[in-house]
Amino acid sequence: MFKGRTVAFFVVIAMLVSSLLTLTFTGQWSFAGAGPVTSGIFADNSGSSTKSDIKKIETALELVKKNYVEDVDQSKLVNGAIDGMMHALGDPFSSYMGPETAQQFSEQIEGSFTGIGAEVSMENGNVVVVSPIKGSPAEKAGIKPKDILLSVNGESFEGLSLNEAVSKIRGPKGTEAKVKVKRSGSAASLEFKIVRADIALETVYARMEQDGVGVIEVTEFSMNTAERFQKELAALEQKGMKGLVIDVRNNPGGVLPVVIEMAQQFVPKGKGIVLVEDKNKRREGTLSKGGGKSYPVAVLTNKGSASASEILAGALQESAGAKLIGEATYGKGTVQTSFTHELGDGSLLKVTIAKWLTPNGEWIHKKGIKPDLAVSQPDYFSVAPINKEKTYKYDTLGDDIKSAQIMLSASGYDPGRKDGYFGKGTENAVKKFQDDNKLEVTGVLDTKTAEALESSLIKQIQDKKNDNQMNRAIEEIRKDIAS
Amino acid sequence: MFKGRTVAFFVVIAMLVSSLLTLTFTGQWSFAGAGPVTSGIFADNSGSSTKSDIKKIETALELVKKNYVEDVDQSKLVNGAIDGMMHALGDPFSSYMGPETAQQFSEQIEGSFTGIGAEVSMENGNVVVVSPIKGSPAEKAGIKPKDILLSVNGESFEGLSLNEAVSKIRGPKGTEAKVKVKRSGSAASLEFKIVRADIALETVYARMEQDGVGVIEVTEFSMNTAERFQKELAALEQKGMKGLVIDVRNNPGGVLPVVIEMAQQFVPKGKGIVLVEDKNKRREGTLSKGGGKSYPVAVLTNKGSASASEILAGALQESAGAKLIGEATYGKGTVQTSFTHELGDGSLLKVTIAKWLTPNGEWIHKKGIKPDLAVSQPDYFSVAPINKEKTYKYDTLGDDIKSAQIMLSASGYDPGRKDGYFGKGTENAVKKFQDDNKLEVTGVLDTKTAEALESSLIKQIQDKKNDNQMNRAIEEIRKDIAS
Repeated sequence: MFKGRTVAFFVVIAMLVSSLLTLTFTGQWSFAGAGPVTSGIFADNSGSSTKSDIKKIETALELVKKNYVEDVDQSKLVNGAIDGMMHALGDPFSSYMGPETAQQFSEQIEGSFTGIGAEVSMENGNVVVVSPIKGSPAEKAGIKPKDILLSVNGESFEGLSLNEAVSKIRGPKGTEAKVKVKRSGSAASLEFKIVRADIALETVYARMEQDGVGVIEVTEFSMNTAERFQKELAALEQKGMKGLVIDVRNNPGGVLPVVIEMAQQFVPKGKGIVLVEDKNKRREGTLSKGGGKSYPVAVLTNKGSASASEILAGALQESAGAKLIGEATYGKGTVQTSFTHELGDGSLLKVTIAKWLTPNGEWIHKKGIKPDLAVSQPDYFSVAPINKEKTYKYDTLGDDIKSAQIMLSASGYDPGRKDGYFGKGTENAVKKFQDDNKLEVTGVLDTKTAEALESSLIKQIQDKKNDNQMNRAIEEIRKDIAS
Repeated sequence: MFKGRTVAFFVVIAMLVSSLLTLTFTGQWSFAGAGPVTSGIFADNSGSSTKSDIKKIETALELVKKNYVEDVDQSKLVNGAIDGMMHALGDPFSSYMGPETAQQFSEQIEGSFTGIGAEVSMENGNVVVVSPIKGSPAEKAGIKPKDILLSVNGESFEGLSLNEAVSKIRGPKGTEAKVKVKRSGSAASLEFKIVRADIALETVYARMEQDGVGVIEVTEFSMNTAERFQKELAALEQKGMKGLVIDVRNNPGGVLPVVIEMAQQFVPKGKGIVLVEDKNKRREGTLSKGGGKSYPVAVLTNKGSASASEILAGALQESAGAKLIGEATYGKGTVQTSFTHELGDGSLLKVTIAKWLTPNGEWIHKKGIKPDLAVSQPDYFSVAPINKEKTYKYDTLGDDIKSAQIMLSASGYDPGRKDGYFGKGTENAVKKFQDDNKLEVTGVLDTKTAEALESSLIKQIQDKKNDNQMNRAIEEIRKDIAS
């Protein structure tokens, strides 16, 4: 399982960004109890009009192939056509994925992938091991943190992006990856033979705060998330947890039955978890089969909490008396399913097949769920990076200066204003910052100063004491415990 | 023919923006002398692989129709598919148009449309006649400038956009439009019965400047443009023209044979006009059948001069000794053709079928043609409009302030700086401007001040003396005449 999850999260996100925000059933295209949906009202008129429409597409394909000035790759045209068809729906959650993206998507849903199990990051153009995942083939083979990975099976990583390198390291279960490694202290490179295996992606992180307040962060609702959640929850309860914060900030969603299983823990028997409405407006409710907790629960949300996260938040708010804290959620009130084998070549069609509503019948699509207690993060949590190729001085202006002002303020230097105008106050703050950070004191925002400001900012963001939302949630639960 | 062409141009552009930048043969899909292009190298392998690819698209279509949560309009999916297929080519000049857009496209190419012949604009939510086109049904029926058009055939224009209203006024040749009109001075509304007819779009504007310098502006290369150009050119020559400026700034292109016919006038017999290279890399040159002028010629270009404009500029520069003045051109070195009847429903496929090169064999695609004499317009020709819902005062900053500073400067008020910071200099300039324009002197950039600044700017832009590029071109031709 991943430890240094920030980096792991980054890598995973970077690879799967196109498939985020889903709420899906895996590997099946029948919708539980909604059989008629798949036959559908169009079943009757898909005859001659479809034929002439398909003929039109075929004619266009032929005209392009025969006449376009360059040679064309037919599969590119076909993928473009299906892509365009999905776009025409005007639904960002219905989409087409080629075989490669489809594979990544299913790994995300499954919550696991096959590889060697080394968490890596890119540092100065090198692929560097952050840490081998516990119990993984990489750890067993002897890969250590800070190892620089040079090549796999003879293919050098030089000049590759992190994603490109990662996709070379990965491979089917049981295959061998010969990894060449540069380790500090040894002049020669080392070679490790590692057999790839299933590696679980961690989606649940639990910890106990003071006064018996448990915190469980859920980063995604993958196939194995409910099981992992239950395990961590049980462990916290055994340690005498008196109240719980469930953190689903920036959690883009996942699998519907998984979130239902998790909500079940908190919603008392017979109360509603979620309503699903099919295309014929027929609603079907899922009621809790038993659960409910005696301790107070808060759900921490932000505008990145989408889909399954919103089901959890809605169910716990309306049926389990939980308090929602943070920001309004994303607002995605639809359910998708995936069609894979129908297309025959590993590609995948993700189609919105239903709406979901909260137990009280609210459709939160494009609205989100408002928190009971609104708490925002400090402004510097969302500051844009500074363009380090430019320098700025007194009496200039721009968005980079605005970012610098927010960063100065975050680190305790008062820039006088935060609107992007480089006034005397900003110049003095830059000078003080430069002095404290052993930089040349010029009062000018140059590359080195910008880099130091960003490093300083990252420290502030990583400092738990600045996570207003989490701290407020813990405080609220603590109050509830005491009362 | 249109008189107040600025507005007319705006209306036409607004309606045809998606079909701009073409270089085409109308109504035919065989490429002159390039028959093999249309059979093409893909003719052999369009068998079984195409069938399975088409089957994949059909499967996707069926899956979406049967399962999507909302009812879907099948023609929307089909149009989306063909659209997506064209996008997959990665060529912005190959595109699919539905029947309505295809109709507008062919009107643009033909250089005419059917309607009543009233040039209209939108003023305070009203559709107002700028002027009836000379000899048009609207003029004959008695429509006057400033008339407010209220409805056509009982359909009110209330709440419609200009384009929506225009498309209601237009209609097939011979049909009747009953237009209800509000005329200032009469309380009741008037009704005119107007029979729609063919209306020619003007694309050629000629005038004689001092010292025998003729200027011909060409706004597009439509089917009737060469004929109109020849007529205007002959008229100028008869008036004793001693030198010519051809202005193709912001001319997006048009029909290939038309620009060849126009270039022919200036390129001496046997010299090259353009080379066309088909997908098999076979080049075919078009040589002038006779022409050439004894007087000096300059071609005025900017980055909006595309396609056929660039053919004209390249041919006249390389084969007719003309001087190019202004900015580098757009850089579109490809030829498209339109397929209409193949799709069977009035929709159209525009496909890039060839490259074109200058007589010397230069492919200017994505590069453009550099002028012999670079001349730029004043900065205020390209200033962004001010967001009039906001107000700004001393010691604030933003892009709106930057625009205001450029506008102040254009009207002769020195704002001190033009970087978007509202300093003392800008405040003083705003005060002076307000005083001169009978506005309350506050030094604050408010809605009224912004509106007055923009009106003042438009006057500057419309003032011929500020058209640096045109003035320089006329000056150069004058020098050439004198020497």
